[in-house]
Amino acid sequence: MAAERPADHAAGPAAGRAAERLVVVGGDAGGMSAASQARRRRDPSDLRITVFERGGHTSYSACGIPYLTGGQVESAEDLIVRTPEEFRSKQDIDARIEHEVVEIDLDRRAVRVRDLAARAERWEGFDQLIVATGAVPRRPRLPGADAQGVYGVQVLDDGIAIRRALDEDAPRRAVVVGGGYIGLEMAEALVHRGLEVSLVDAAPQPMKTLDPDMGALVADALRSVGVTLYLGERLEAFETSGDRVDAVVTEARTLPADLVILGMGVRPNTELAQAAGIETGVTGGIVTDRRMRTRSEGVWAAGDCVETRHLVSGAPVAIALGTHANKQGRVAGVNIGGGYATFPGVVGTAVSKICHVEVARTGLNEAEAEAAGFETHSVVVESTTRAGYYPGAVPMKTKLIVEQRSGRLLGAQIVGEEGAAKRIDGLAIALWNRMTVEQMTGLDLGYAPPFSPVWDPVLIAARKAAERVESAMHTNP
Amino acid sequence: MAAERPADHAAGPAAGRAAERLVVVGGDAGGMSAASQARRRRDPSDLRITVFERGGHTSYSACGIPYLTGGQVESAEDLIVRTPEEFRSKQDIDARIEHEVVEIDLDRRAVRVRDLAARAERWEGFDQLIVATGAVPRRPRLPGADAQGVYGVQVLDDGIAIRRALDEDAPRRAVVVGGGYIGLEMAEALVHRGLEVSLVDAAPQPMKTLDPDMGALVADALRSVGVTLYLGERLEAFETSGDRVDAVVTEARTLPADLVILGMGVRPNTELAQAAGIETGVTGGIVTDRRMRTRSEGVWAAGDCVETRHLVSGAPVAIALGTHANKQGRVAGVNIGGGYATFPGVVGTAVSKICHVEVARTGLNEAEAEAAGFETHSVVVESTTRAGYYPGAVPMKTKLIVEQRSGRLLGAQIVGEEGAAKRIDGLAIALWNRMTVEQMTGLDLGYAPPFSPVWDPVLIAARKAAERVESAMHTNP
Repeated sequence: MAAERPADHAAGPAAGRAAERLVVVGGDAGGMSAASQARRRRDPSDLRITVFERGGHTSYSACGIPYLTGGQVESAEDLIVRTPEEFRSKQDIDARIEHEVVEIDLDRRAVRVRDLAARAERWEGFDQLIVATGAVPRRPRLPGADAQGVYGVQVLDDGIAIRRALDEDAPRRAVVVGGGYIGLEMAEALVHRGLEVSLVDAAPQPMKTLDPDMGALVADALRSVGVTLYLGERLEAFETSGDRVDAVVTEARTLPADLVILGMGVRPNTELAQAAGIETGVTGGIVTDRRMRTRSEGVWAAGDCVETRHLVSGAPVAIALGTHANKQGRVAGVNIGGGYATFPGVVGTAVSKICHVEVARTGLNEAEAEAAGFETHSVVVESTTRAGYYPGAVPMKTKLIVEQRSGRLLGAQIVGEEGAAKRIDGLAIALWNRMTVEQMTGLDLGYAPPFSPVWDPVLIAARKAAERVESAMHTNP
Repeated sequence: MAAERPADHAAGPAAGRAAERLVVVGGDAGGMSAASQARRRRDPSDLRITVFERGGHTSYSACGIPYLTGGQVESAEDLIVRTPEEFRSKQDIDARIEHEVVEIDLDRRAVRVRDLAARAERWEGFDQLIVATGAVPRRPRLPGADAQGVYGVQVLDDGIAIRRALDEDAPRRAVVVGGGYIGLEMAEALVHRGLEVSLVDAAPQPMKTLDPDMGALVADALRSVGVTLYLGERLEAFETSGDRVDAVVTEARTLPADLVILGMGVRPNTELAQAAGIETGVTGGIVTDRRMRTRSEGVWAAGDCVETRHLVSGAPVAIALGTHANKQGRVAGVNIGGGYATFPGVVGTAVSKICHVEVARTGLNEAEAEAAGFETHSVVVESTTRAGYYPGAVPMKTKLIVEQRSGRLLGAQIVGEEGAAKRIDGLAIALWNRMTVEQMTGLDLGYAPPFSPVWDPVLIAARKAAERVESAMHTNP
């Protein structure tokens, strides 16, 4: 099939010159942020924007899927930020759902698009292209992994399917495979819905992005709400009955299951880009510069499909998170729009809530710091979220990981109850600015009894870490 | 009366040399933090520590007084961090309450101390001295200002007296004079106790540390909980009946009152230091270097009685706040203890909660920025504390004040509901590090639906401010 310019693209140029054609592959956070920003800076007579999304929705909150599952969010529509119709009518962005781009031809400057409903294909030409193909859930290559009743959690359609299964099939027993953020949030959601929930992970702790001591607190919280943990157990198979999943088999036991959630993480979805010769990096994500340009002329990328830089370790990382996708999309869109914006990288901040327990982390954990070649001190402090005497003061633990000699903050972790987790922001900004813990002891943070003890937990931790650095200097000069 | 070394100070030196004598004037946050830190680094055979406190308590949370008043805190004891007995037994710090230092003689290296219970005076020698005399409430020089039923809010004994008046006298009508943090928190507390509450302020808005637009939101919140505001009305007198207050008279009206709270701010309590020749600055506070040394040899100062530097305006300021007092005390104590610590200054961060409304500010407001010579842009954004679809998402407004050309963040203000105010910390840390709003748009803040929209309000505000700076550059090159 040859690339040919569709007839409607021949529509007249606004001012004697044909409008530039921007094609966006993927209509969620990264792609739609880019499209919106580009549109804000260039009007339709100057830039035509076409978005192809293979799923049934544009611009939704994938991070809201656990709450759709748990019932805190009523309907999938609540998670949709903007529909294709709204993009069309409000921003003159031609967003087409159920259209899958199956090939990118950089020489011809065209993409081959499959209209999934009409079962038809055509070529669509572009002058500039944004690849925003997101991520795909890791699925184990094991018997039964594709059986009915086994769900990945990535796109909104996954959330809708899980919610429907809960509402219609009334499953009793669920097994969550994988103890990362999504796995844990889904475990909470299923407990919330009254299911008997087990969680299986080959690692000895849930939430491997935390150090073991902090991860253990998360394990305790999960157990306290009734999740049964099978840690350090490798997954071996899924038993099925007909084409439905029946049980999850680990190296140690068989867990009957009416519903299985895969929370084994995601990987950048870059087969399409790779096939086109767009460069990907060691993480499998697309390589971009800080303006979100790929190494291919006129091709941009944003969101879960890209590789970015960790500003503490300096290493390339692929972190699938809506907030990064939105920022990267905005940056690509500003630049395509003729402005100037950069995405400098990430420091690995993440927060999550599992029932009454809030969890947060930023920077490097101990193992990551060691792998990056840092020698570290760690301190953990226990405190409360508010003044101890103020109603609603609840416990929280704050851990800091600090470079030995310099005292520079390298990472932080928080596990606590309501009001604990968002304190990670201050730590992330301190980290971003390469502050030492000694410098941090002077920080002017908000204090009033309903919000903080007179020494904010962040300051207590900084002070203790600074003392640790100082005393180590005296003992190991 | 001549300075003479008391007999008990002649007690034997530990290692052939007499222990150094540290005297601390004032036994609350600044003084006791300093004493504790000095003790941690130097044991009693090397450093004797004596603290004189004229009130009846050491080391308590003055910021908790509104909650003691409102009843959220049961008893005054809940606000006490450490009693004199505990200081004595656990840290070998001789803390004497109801002992008022009435004179400091720097030549003789001694303080004259009045034992208020015994009505006796003596001189106590020192080698090093810490002045931590705190602040005193501003009282209007008006008839009746010292009548019974008129309360300042500064020391714990004030809080105990107010609580007793509420519990025993069952007042019905209260007038709060002054719309600063303490005034507003006390107004809330009195509403909470069922009183009819009026608030009088000569300024046209409550909370003058906010810009008028943000202050208006606080005024709305106060009215919504039933506080009657009389703004822009100057106080003229207090009417009394016998020696009890009866009414508050403004230039416009007479407000009957069974109870009057003065929330007109505080000033550094430095008469004692000034009389001794210890240098004070333009704010009336004691001048120190960043190690908290005064200009007088061997004399340190910490807490509400000192003047510090505003790191954005560069101007000297006196800000009475427990968190600064604790930090400054710690710094003085570390240095007296032979270590090295500095207090670099403040950025003017403050948070407060008035009923359901949270208020926060940091840096300079518009008027302060103008006074400091900055040309500014301001942006205000409305958003929610959590993802819009997540239960408990409530509105918040975030205002940023930004230097025009550089885009440097100069100040921020937040007014919103639960979960809004502590976001000021991230802004304060960004400000501390002299970040521009453009740099801030890249910050890696914690995102998950229970904690934030996918664009955190801080990021939305930064983005909008960055766009404002950019567009002004294009229109005013």
